[in-house]
Amino acid sequence: MDMSASGLPFDDVRRLIPMMPGPDEEAVAIVKARDQDLTKPAGSLGRLEDIVEWVAAWQGKGQPDIRRPVVCVFAGNHGVVKHGVSPYPQSVTRQMLENFAAGGAAINQICAAYDLGFKVFDLALDLPTGDFTEEAALDEKSCVATMAFGMEAIAGGADLLCLGEMGIGNTTSAAAIFAALYGGPVGKWVGRGTGIDDAGLARKRAVVEQALATHAGHLDDPLEVLRRLGGREVAAIAGAILAARLQRIPVILDGYVVCAAAAVLKALDPGALDHCLAGHRSAEGAHGEVLERLGLEPVLDLGMRLGEGTGAALAAGIVKAAVATHNGMATFAQAAVSQRPDAS
Amino acid sequence: MDMSASGLPFDDVRRLIPMMPGPDEEAVAIVKARDQDLTKPAGSLGRLEDIVEWVAAWQGKGQPDIRRPVVCVFAGNHGVVKHGVSPYPQSVTRQMLENFAAGGAAINQICAAYDLGFKVFDLALDLPTGDFTEEAALDEKSCVATMAFGMEAIAGGADLLCLGEMGIGNTTSAAAIFAALYGGPVGKWVGRGTGIDDAGLARKRAVVEQALATHAGHLDDPLEVLRRLGGREVAAIAGAILAARLQRIPVILDGYVVCAAAAVLKALDPGALDHCLAGHRSAEGAHGEVLERLGLEPVLDLGMRLGEGTGAALAAGIVKAAVATHNGMATFAQAAVSQRPDAS
Repeated sequence: MDMSASGLPFDDVRRLIPMMPGPDEEAVAIVKARDQDLTKPAGSLGRLEDIVEWVAAWQGKGQPDIRRPVVCVFAGNHGVVKHGVSPYPQSVTRQMLENFAAGGAAINQICAAYDLGFKVFDLALDLPTGDFTEEAALDEKSCVATMAFGMEAIAGGADLLCLGEMGIGNTTSAAAIFAALYGGPVGKWVGRGTGIDDAGLARKRAVVEQALATHAGHLDDPLEVLRRLGGREVAAIAGAILAARLQRIPVILDGYVVCAAAAVLKALDPGALDHCLAGHRSAEGAHGEVLERLGLEPVLDLGMRLGEGTGAALAAGIVKAAVATHNGMATFAQAAVSQRPDAS
Repeated sequence: MDMSASGLPFDDVRRLIPMMPGPDEEAVAIVKARDQDLTKPAGSLGRLEDIVEWVAAWQGKGQPDIRRPVVCVFAGNHGVVKHGVSPYPQSVTRQMLENFAAGGAAINQICAAYDLGFKVFDLALDLPTGDFTEEAALDEKSCVATMAFGMEAIAGGADLLCLGEMGIGNTTSAAAIFAALYGGPVGKWVGRGTGIDDAGLARKRAVVEQALATHAGHLDDPLEVLRRLGGREVAAIAGAILAARLQRIPVILDGYVVCAAAAVLKALDPGALDHCLAGHRSAEGAHGEVLERLGLEPVLDLGMRLGEGTGAALAAGIVKAAVATHNGMATFAQAAVSQRPDAS
């Protein structure tokens, strides 16, 4: 992002929206044509076929390929945790980053199982965001700078980007964002996160209600929602999604918090997530309804609610297999398998 | 199976049923205890945690492990195809076996993606079963011999068994088996298989109705259902499921045809599929209802209907990742991550 441009920092973000490329329809047509020739009944691989077309559309390649899949996990700390919205202390965010570095977390194992690259972004963990019950989580400049940092997700190259997060308290931020964007009773958007008890859940709901009251009148602009109620990891993920679109890299979203970042972009432009796949339906909060509002059908539905990109990475295993299947299968002619007599 | 025992061949099968071992509860307890110590909120990996417990229960190992996952595909030909129940000629069954051997089929690519072993069983392709609209598909001795052959799936060793099939016409056999076991309108159980048109679908329905009429009065015994309406691959798969149980090897079922074999065993003994996971919900016929009747919740739901074990193999990728995650993750103590203060 060109931070030197004149105007307010958010203008730099807004300028990027109209630059988002669309799907490569020619690449999709090539995939569809080859698919018809592969040794299987037409359509019999169901969603796998759609996934290959989606990869082709956004890589812009008639023969899509996944050689450099990367999982990026963004980590931030949240001022709002002082209200007791998580059963874990804030120090766990950094401890988990050390666990990632040592290879001991769930996401490390899934990346190893599916041969996915893995990067972690420490977003100023020692500087938690402002407590959004009282003030904006981020000022505009910090929010944009964090989005720009998130764009680094694709530096070094990637042909499939899985997005994840870590941040004690961040499901409260996600709930606040959904409540601001979608309205309705706040309780609907507030889930148990890492597993808070009933009293904590009530505190979490009260915190989100207070946040909406504090920022009332400023939540019509999705970018204001992001900076006032988001966390650094949420802002960075929004940047990463946007950067991937601009560079034609398909994205797999993880769960509730990643989708809060995605929802901000969707609110800015209804087509902003066309290059994104929902890795899974999380058990957190109202993720199912969020996915419906985002127009995304999850690949997996396994009752997971860990974050770290685990749902996205598991789905990446399916996406890799789908693309490998399309590329590796023989055609009817190559294999001397009879086509159905009525096939063209 | 000891084929030398006296009595009718099916008695050899029935003798195995009471020998089926139950789950290893001690192994499950070990997994549950370790799971509580892993660096994630309790329960946050959802179905992945259940899957690891299931693997442990049936491998009988407190530290479950998947080192030799194998996909076995059983192929048979069906006398009933002469009624035009498939858009593809019967010769395609053998052609697809050659495609498997050459590595050109969808299942080959998925096995390669997830490092799964792969075996194909040619079940007398040159001897299609009897046309079950007129006679039993198999005599009792052939049915049992085929089940015994299916038991060879685990010869050579496996610690996770994925079952698949190939056989032009075999969704008609599966539909007939479900109609016989579960009743209701025949049309409910008859799907489009490889993609037959409306006229073919009507023929398929008529074929199943005729089969039920021809064998009326002989369909109370599930093994009679199997030999009269099944195919060789269906019988072999039933044998493979049973052998895996006896040897404590967890099984992943594929779609409609594999579940027809499973349904026969479930009808013999309600606990016969406790060691089985449903890999996916297929788009064929009433597979969703079949899974409900089998008491199985599918891992994946991707609109697939190819067979070949593709749904089971894709699910094996998830199962492998689940077990690797459980085994590879650090504990709170190892990673020096703070437990929640209220945790025991």
